[in-house]
Amino acid sequence: MTARALVLNGPNLNLLGTREPDVYGAQTLDDVAALCRKTGEELGLDVDFRQSNHEGVLIDWIQEAGTAQASGELIGAVFNPGAYTHTSVALQDAIKGVGLRVIELHISNVHTREAFRHRSFISPVAAGIVVGFGTQGYALALRGLRDLAER
Amino acid sequence: MTARALVLNGPNLNLLGTREPDVYGAQTLDDVAALCRKTGEELGLDVDFRQSNHEGVLIDWIQEAGTAQASGELIGAVFNPGAYTHTSVALQDAIKGVGLRVIELHISNVHTREAFRHRSFISPVAAGIVVGFGTQGYALALRGLRDLAER
Amino acid sequence: MTARALVLNGPNLNLLGTREPDVYGAQTLDDVAALCRKTGEELGLDVDFRQSNHEGVLIDWIQEAGTAQASGELIGAVFNPGAYTHTSVALQDAIKGVGLRVIELHISNVHTREAFRHRSFISPVAAGIVVGFGTQGYALALRGLRDLAER
Amino acid sequence: MTARALVLNGPNLNLLGTREPDVYGAQTLDDVAALCRKTGEELGLDVDFRQSNHEGVLIDWIQEAGTAQASGELIGAVFNPGAYTHTSVALQDAIKGVGLRVIELHISNVHTREAFRHRSFISPVAAGIVVGFGTQGYALALRGLRDLAER
Amino acid sequence: MTARALVLNGPNLNLLGTREPDVYGAQTLDDVAALCRKTGEELGLDVDFRQSNHEGVLIDWIQEAGTAQASGELIGAVFNPGAYTHTSVALQDAIKGVGLRVIELHISNVHTREAFRHRSFISPVAAGIVVGFGTQGYALALRGLRDLAER
Amino acid sequence: MTARALVLNGPNLNLLGTREPDVYGAQTLDDVAALCRKTGEELGLDVDFRQSNHEGVLIDWIQEAGTAQASGELIGAVFNPGAYTHTSVALQDAIKGVGLRVIELHISNVHTREAFRHRSFISPVAAGIVVGFGTQGYALALRGLRDLAER
Amino acid sequence: MTARALVLNGPNLNLLGTREPDVYGAQTLDDVAALCRKTGEELGLDVDFRQSNHEGVLIDWIQEAGTAQASGELIGAVFNPGAYTHTSVALQDAIKGVGLRVIELHISNVHTREAFRHRSFISPVAAGIVVGFGTQGYALALRGLRDLAER
Amino acid sequence: MTARALVLNGPNLNLLGTREPDVYGAQTLDDVAALCRKTGEELGLDVDFRQSNHEGVLIDWIQEAGTAQASGELIGAVFNPGAYTHTSVALQDAIKGVGLRVIELHISNVHTREAFRHRSFISPVAAGIVVGFGTQGYALALRGLRDLAER
Amino acid sequence: MTARALVLNGPNLNLLGTREPDVYGAQTLDDVAALCRKTGEELGLDVDFRQSNHEGVLIDWIQEAGTAQASGELIGAVFNPGAYTHTSVALQDAIKGVGLRVIELHISNVHTREAFRHRSFISPVAAGIVVGFGTQGYALALRGLRDLAER
Amino acid sequence: MTARALVLNGPNLNLLGTREPDVYGAQTLDDVAALCRKTGEELGLDVDFRQSNHEGVLIDWIQEAGTAQASGELIGAVFNPGAYTHTSVALQDAIKGVGLRVIELHISNVHTREAFRHRSFISPVAAGIVVGFGTQGYALALRGLRDLAER
Amino acid sequence: MTARALVLNGPNLNLLGTREPDVYGAQTLDDVAALCRKTGEELGLDVDFRQSNHEGVLIDWIQEAGTAQASGELIGAVFNPGAYTHTSVALQDAIKGVGLRVIELHISNVHTREAFRHRSFISPVAAGIVVGFGTQGYALALRGLRDLAER
Amino acid sequence: MTARALVLNGPNLNLLGTREPDVYGAQTLDDVAALCRKTGEELGLDVDFRQSNHEGVLIDWIQEAGTAQASGELIGAVFNPGAYTHTSVALQDAIKGVGLRVIELHISNVHTREAFRHRSFISPVAAGIVVGFGTQGYALALRGLRDLAER
Repeated sequence: MTARALVLNGPNLNLLGTREPDVYGAQTLDDVAALCRKTGEELGLDVDFRQSNHEGVLIDWIQEAGTAQASGELIGAVFNPGAYTHTSVALQDAIKGVGLRVIELHISNVHTREAFRHRSFISPVAAGIVVGFGTQGYALALRGLRDLAER
Repeated sequence: MTARALVLNGPNLNLLGTREPDVYGAQTLDDVAALCRKTGEELGLDVDFRQSNHEGVLIDWIQEAGTAQASGELIGAVFNPGAYTHTSVALQDAIKGVGLRVIELHISNVHTREAFRHRSFISPVAAGIVVGFGTQGYALALRGLRDLAER
Repeated sequence: MTARALVLNGPNLNLLGTREPDVYGAQTLDDVAALCRKTGEELGLDVDFRQSNHEGVLIDWIQEAGTAQASGELIGAVFNPGAYTHTSVALQDAIKGVGLRVIELHISNVHTREAFRHRSFISPVAAGIVVGFGTQGYALALRGLRDLAER
Repeated sequence: MTARALVLNGPNLNLLGTREPDVYGAQTLDDVAALCRKTGEELGLDVDFRQSNHEGVLIDWIQEAGTAQASGELIGAVFNPGAYTHTSVALQDAIKGVGLRVIELHISNVHTREAFRHRSFISPVAAGIVVGFGTQGYALALRGLRDLAER
Repeated sequence: MTARALVLNGPNLNLLGTREPDVYGAQTLDDVAALCRKTGEELGLDVDFRQSNHEGVLIDWIQEAGTAQASGELIGAVFNPGAYTHTSVALQDAIKGVGLRVIELHISNVHTREAFRHRSFISPVAAGIVVGFGTQGYALALRGLRDLAER
Repeated sequence: MTARALVLNGPNLNLLGTREPDVYGAQTLDDVAALCRKTGEELGLDVDFRQSNHEGVLIDWIQEAGTAQASGELIGAVFNPGAYTHTSVALQDAIKGVGLRVIELHISNVHTREAFRHRSFISPVAAGIVVGFGTQGYALALRGLRDLAER
Repeated sequence: MTARALVLNGPNLNLLGTREPDVYGAQTLDDVAALCRKTGEELGLDVDFRQSNHEGVLIDWIQEAGTAQASGELIGAVFNPGAYTHTSVALQDAIKGVGLRVIELHISNVHTREAFRHRSFISPVAAGIVVGFGTQGYALALRGLRDLAER
Repeated sequence: MTARALVLNGPNLNLLGTREPDVYGAQTLDDVAALCRKTGEELGLDVDFRQSNHEGVLIDWIQEAGTAQASGELIGAVFNPGAYTHTSVALQDAIKGVGLRVIELHISNVHTREAFRHRSFISPVAAGIVVGFGTQGYALALRGLRDLAER
Repeated sequence: MTARALVLNGPNLNLLGTREPDVYGAQTLDDVAALCRKTGEELGLDVDFRQSNHEGVLIDWIQEAGTAQASGELIGAVFNPGAYTHTSVALQDAIKGVGLRVIELHISNVHTREAFRHRSFISPVAAGIVVGFGTQGYALALRGLRDLAER
Repeated sequence: MTARALVLNGPNLNLLGTREPDVYGAQTLDDVAALCRKTGEELGLDVDFRQSNHEGVLIDWIQEAGTAQASGELIGAVFNPGAYTHTSVALQDAIKGVGLRVIELHISNVHTREAFRHRSFISPVAAGIVVGFGTQGYALALRGLRDLAER
Repeated sequence: MTARALVLNGPNLNLLGTREPDVYGAQTLDDVAALCRKTGEELGLDVDFRQSNHEGVLIDWIQEAGTAQASGELIGAVFNPGAYTHTSVALQDAIKGVGLRVIELHISNVHTREAFRHRSFISPVAAGIVVGFGTQGYALALRGLRDLAER
Repeated sequence: MTARALVLNGPNLNLLGTREPDVYGAQTLDDVAALCRKTGEELGLDVDFRQSNHEGVLIDWIQEAGTAQASGELIGAVFNPGAYTHTSVALQDAIKGVGLRVIELHISNVHTREAFRHRSFISPVAAGIVVGFGTQGYALALRGLRDLAER
């Protein structure tokens, strides 16, 4: 049975490619999903790709993922938390609470934006962080997740 | 076909009129909806009036409204974000992401309240702001939205 | 008819007992529910025990509880807001808006943790606060709620 | 006798239209005065339109307006305080001291500018606030002032 | 031999009941002592009730209590530190230095008062915290102290 | 020839007595002038009593007073700077620049008001400060000025 | 029977005159006591003059003074809190708790010293404040206290 | 026709030379005017030298200067804003509003003085800044202004 | 000719593997160099691997790398700036000044360490950021650098 | 007659050795007194060793010591202020007021503890500071005090 | 023998002209050196022009310059500290330690850039400051240095 | 073979004795070296005395010292980091990275100087700290280093 990797996308990432292409590029979230699945194949991983605008739904999914990881079925998650990066203590607690192996990912370089975007509640509980490589960062993050899971 | 205007209300605004009438007045949210529809008639606008306590639902609605506005069917939104004004980066990103024309509205004067209510994550992406006119402010905001849409 | 007391649990409290037992103890949320019901029996109270990871759902429940309290059917709520303690102005507004009698409860001592956990948006609208007694604190909080309701 | 409404403009607003038209639009202060007078006619109001670069003169005018309002001759003022918004405690005291009904107005959205422009000493004593509608905001503000005066 | 519980009251608590009854209630410190002794009887505890306005005296008493607790004669202390809550590092050091089991108690809700009252030097070394139940909180705190001591 | 004492009043003090009598008392500025002249007579001082809403005028008067004091004709000034207390570096520079002996005076207790009113740019250059005695404070301040001038 | 006025001096004021005469003048605390008694005679007041280095003793004295004032025997206190001005919440609570009429006094101008000396915990509960007149300020403060007591 | 250069001096600079000569030197403002005129002759510039203590007057002059510069008659201004440097947003707006070429000048080194003097509202809109050369800095600033105007 | 990639290591990275292996792992900097060269071979890149404790030397190398990148000979740099991350504006200026394509890399998760380590002067000028993957992060970063260079 | 050196210990130092030996070592305060006396013999000094938990008592002792030093009988004091280090302005004033030569001493390294322990009110008035050498630091401090006194 | 003036350039100034010409102009550092030498000839000064990216080298040079100035051979230095302006206490100490007469110079207006560039460690020890005149500022600064040296 | 102790001096300490003798005393760094060697003889230690203005050189030396200490050849270092105390995270990392036993030393009392000199990046990794004893502090620090090494 193939190991599974979760790719989790937070609020407004469903808008990808259709809006502000100068900042986030022209690729849609479907393109990203395809890239992740293709990368998954190269790495021998089933990719479970999701998006939600609801903080509570993301918490539910992280808790489920924790259970799956504990059973050995899931190697962890690549997580682009969008705006909840900067405001959600509850997501931090969920990740820490279930011990989920998380790679935090941002498409653009958050450090060139407003000061309130420089603080991440996710970073302190992330196993690794990948920032600023555009959508290609998802492939890097999956590879990094695989490396960490194998250590 | 009549142009449409969205009026969006955030958390706890469904309590309007029944609680703390000295701060927010005696009108209920239904009264406000009626006022908005009546103002809409004067301005030649169909008013789509909604309320939710869920940040994720508000994000979903803003994203839909962005699509409607892009197709020319909607002129924009009057948005009373309630307490999410002060905490939601995700709502800011949603408005900016879809380019929705938003009039931020507060019924009471937030600047006479606690310091954490002086910060708005919505203001930087609002086309206009209307604060402190009581429920009558909805009528002003719709009028202002119409003016901006016609420019 | 027996008076009712609400016990409300916020995000990630469904993980109780299964994760980080050194911080939160080995009891599960079901154990806590049983303890609350047993304490309720001693105090002559029906205990309505709930948990949600969704801020919006918690707001909805608090609003309903406000109505129930106003009708004399509910004496108030013991509320462990989890991570939303530190970020949710909307929960503060809901409690204040409906005038719900709330005992804020934390299982562990938040004052020994990160600085951002020292700020509570719930405390200014809480009738009483109970911190750091482990799960046994729920019994104390119910007792305190009953005392306040009887005053 | 027709009721009077004061429209007060602070420092540098006499430059309107001739400088930085991309920020403040191409209309001059004379155009704004004409718009205000036309709106006044629609609302049945005599509009008294003034501008000064001197903080002391603005304080004098506000004190006089307070007397006029107390006598029932004036319904209040629309006030664009320009840069004094962010620095003048004396203007706040003047408005509060005479109890003048003031609608604070800003042509452009101050919340997209420097941080020191996010603080307003006028807002805590304003009856209503109108921000970001361009010069058209003067018409909205007069309408809002009339509504408040009639309540 | 009956186990002993210390109840320690800091500066100005001797004024209780005679001053500011709207904030602190009409009960005097003698009433509170009686309530504590009555609760002690229910819980099988000898209650040792004290008050001082002198920080040094409170430190001395905490050090003595630490010795008594180490010998098994005392189960710990309920401590209402009054204003020293916010200023005394020495009291924190005393509690930590002797390892005294302390329940921090405040009669009124300190979180609705000035910002400097939101910081407690006692909380980080408290075993439990009880805030806002009026003088009835002493009974809750003694009960909580007994529960913790028995664990 | 009788020595002269200047009594200088800043913005909005001309409103005294007619507005907010619960904060500032019922006496008008004319009453205060009369009180100062009467006190002056007791102390053998000619009292020169002035008020302006204009920061620049106050600076001019302070400079003139400095010259008068240097010539021995004036013993110094009692200065109630009103709102300029908290914002005017220029008034500080004027007082320091001419070395004027100034008694800073506030009618009400500024320390019970907003935080921005706790900072005074005048205090570091004041010879003495009198706060919170109501209008009677002017008499105390004149007496204190005389004492300092005689040392 | 002559009315009594308390003059209370905090830590290190017993050093007056013998140390740092350039800052505090050459008068000793005995000289100040004599000045106060002489002024008391002029004003028809018995002056009760005390000093302590112990915060707890000062609290005790303030509480006693509150009782004396309530019985009409004492008109209030002139209080030079020395260094406790900047650190003692307990003294603030004592004054507020017994409702003592207090004139806060500082011999030198604290606003020209370190930033931590600009904050006073006494000022928010003081009836009047006298700063910077040297030891002569005690006479002014007694006079101001008498005036306030007579209002 | 000779090009004109404005030299503008803010509050209290009329005191130059007569007060605090150890900080600002012994030269009077007349000496500075003479130095500026002499330097103007060397550079082929008519020097228009002015001083005011009134913020509003300075704003008026800057607005006039903007018009003169736009017509090619004026090359810009050397501006010593005195204390308004640190408090006047309105002067910043005036300079930016009319696009005046301004050399900000301070006679002494403001960076060795109080912290509130380290912030300049003028610097962000200044074309060049000259600090600390004493009155000789005016000659340097005029030379720098000429250089910038010729580029 | 093979393209070249620079791998730059800042202060104390020469200690890698020999000290604090629980934080940084057991691999030495030589091991990392070998890993980078091996990854370089996979990606068709010559890896130029360097370390210095001297800020000035690192600036020199970045300037040289900028020239090499401009000539097409170098694709950019992976840069682990060590402690200079948090203090060196000069390294930021160097990278920005020569337009070097930089992947910022940290071996361990800096966000779980002291607050002063959360600020990076390098991040705002980094093309991509890789944090927390241990020494394996160098391979990811090289891959990411190659991807960005090919875009 | 042998010169005397005071060794002064603040709150909770009487607990030394019996509590938290991993932080403060296993030596008791009696052991420290013995070490100080032994060191005193080596240096030709009578050591006067004291401890108090009362801030007021410490102030009294410092004032007495100042008198003794002025008379040449005492060379100064080694002072371990314990928790009062971080909160007592009054101790700073006492030391400064009597001009006592003080060596501030801390047994453990306060800079590795909570942020509020990094601020010392004693350091600005200390002649020398010795931190982190365990109880052996008392010997070093006495030696340093002797050296300074002999200069 | 001709007097010598040092012109010292800090990190990244060797990039001048080749990078970011829109910010720093098109002139290279060689052009600036030529300008300085030409200006030196006009002023009768030998110009010693240097640049280094190494903080330590700059400190060494400043110390040498201090010796040269003390011997009368050097009149002082024009110093463009680049990024070390904002981070180097050591350069401040070097200048102050040797008493070097320094004119701080910045080519562009640092006050329009990031907030961390508004703080200068050099300004408090600079004799004069010249900001924002482009490379022409070097000529002004040399002239200003000469004027100061001649005073 | 004699054990070795390193004495390390940071930037500008080579200026000792020749500059600012009122702050740092009249002894030169050579005098200090002699004092250290003499003290070393008393303690049976070879003293290796060095100074550098280059942060990188200091890091290199600390790394070497760490190796020497690990081999038992060196007992640790007395380190006067000069201005790098306040700015160098890299020196902190070096000391921590090699586990060097460091006594931090400052000749003058840094706590009486500017606020930015109150923060030390070295203190958290220092074994002991000696401040304010003048150059004699080097002897104390060596003695303290020897004591710690022998424990």
